[in-house]
Amino acid sequence: MATLVLHDYFRSSASFRVRIALNLKGLDYDRVEVSLIAGEQKSDAYLAQNAQGFVPMLVADGEPIIQSLAIIDWLDRAFPEPRLIPDEAMPRAVALAQAHVVACDIHPLNNLRVLKYLTRDLGLNEQTKDHWYRHWVAEGFDALEAMAGEGRYLGGDVPGIADCCLVPQMYNARRFDLPLDAYPRLVAIDAACMELEAFQRAHPDAVKAG
Amino acid sequence: MATLVLHDYFRSSASFRVRIALNLKGLDYDRVEVSLIAGEQKSDAYLAQNAQGFVPMLVADGEPIIQSLAIIDWLDRAFPEPRLIPDEAMPRAVALAQAHVVACDIHPLNNLRVLKYLTRDLGLNEQTKDHWYRHWVAEGFDALEAMAGEGRYLGGDVPGIADCCLVPQMYNARRFDLPLDAYPRLVAIDAACMELEAFQRAHPDAVKAG
Repeated sequence: MATLVLHDYFRSSASFRVRIALNLKGLDYDRVEVSLIAGEQKSDAYLAQNAQGFVPMLVADGEPIIQSLAIIDWLDRAFPEPRLIPDEAMPRAVALAQAHVVACDIHPLNNLRVLKYLTRDLGLNEQTKDHWYRHWVAEGFDALEAMAGEGRYLGGDVPGIADCCLVPQMYNARRFDLPLDAYPRLVAIDAACMELEAFQRAHPDAVKAG
Repeated sequence: MATLVLHDYFRSSASFRVRIALNLKGLDYDRVEVSLIAGEQKSDAYLAQNAQGFVPMLVADGEPIIQSLAIIDWLDRAFPEPRLIPDEAMPRAVALAQAHVVACDIHPLNNLRVLKYLTRDLGLNEQTKDHWYRHWVAEGFDALEAMAGEGRYLGGDVPGIADCCLVPQMYNARRFDLPLDAYPRLVAIDAACMELEAFQRAHPDAVKAG
């Protein structure tokens, strides 16, 4: 059994994804909080392991792995049960596409470094920043709502990699007051996920409290 | 042998990635140009197959697959030789992390819909837009330069999924006049890739001319 240490930040969306995946696999791991507010991700010690200076980073038996979807792929091969990325070709392509709609087309536009750039570098006000935030979530959710199948989860009968991405993004959408009426499937799937302990224990509020 | 139809746009970076992957695999495919300038990706016919309305979309035996990295994953399993995503755990994690630095942390901030939002919706000028563009490429390239190994390609001795992502991003960086002096490894890897016919034939200029 590998020793797993997750370097993350409680509110980081990509970190939340990986915590869900670790919990769904039933894995024990140590958590090292990297405060993005204090800039700890740019410390020399952290950069020595992760040149990008982002969270999350999973250190598995001393080997650092970065990028949340690469970490989940690694976990899914090292600990195959329960599977988070389907093995069958088309279900796999669908699951990865759904995950990438969140991970490529929503989240990167709205993470902390980008919001800081909008306000500090471009001098935009909070209202414009919040509108930017909601705009890209809505565009992505429009697509994801249409792409959601009939299952209880995006992954079908069981939660998978796309659910690991959706739930943190729903949490963010609510923080930025995005109306969710247009996304009944996503709201229902998020609620189904949040009934599971794996998701509850990964939630920023649970991690912060812990 | 599957019938492969790639719906793409010559200058789309994510489309360029998939063309490289198809060529590296030596696969024959038909190309359907979807003009992002003319808004063809939002036509009813296109949206019926791809609710997100983005390029690229690969239709394999009638089944649409979207999101460039999901398409490359599908190709790599359907046509395993040459491999673009390593099978061994740590090389695989590194390759996927490098690919995601481009696909999540650079490209989504700089694609056409975002640049349009900056100028049309936020009323920013061209200079500010170009500075935005270069800022995110530079941040991502700083990380990728440090993450590049000693090999001829990001993939090592053979080009892989990360090279499929790097080369289109280098093309974009040059279009936006980003100085590349700080990235000798990336410049060398890009040059090595562009010696290969698979990359040459996938290039926007080659596709546009064809």
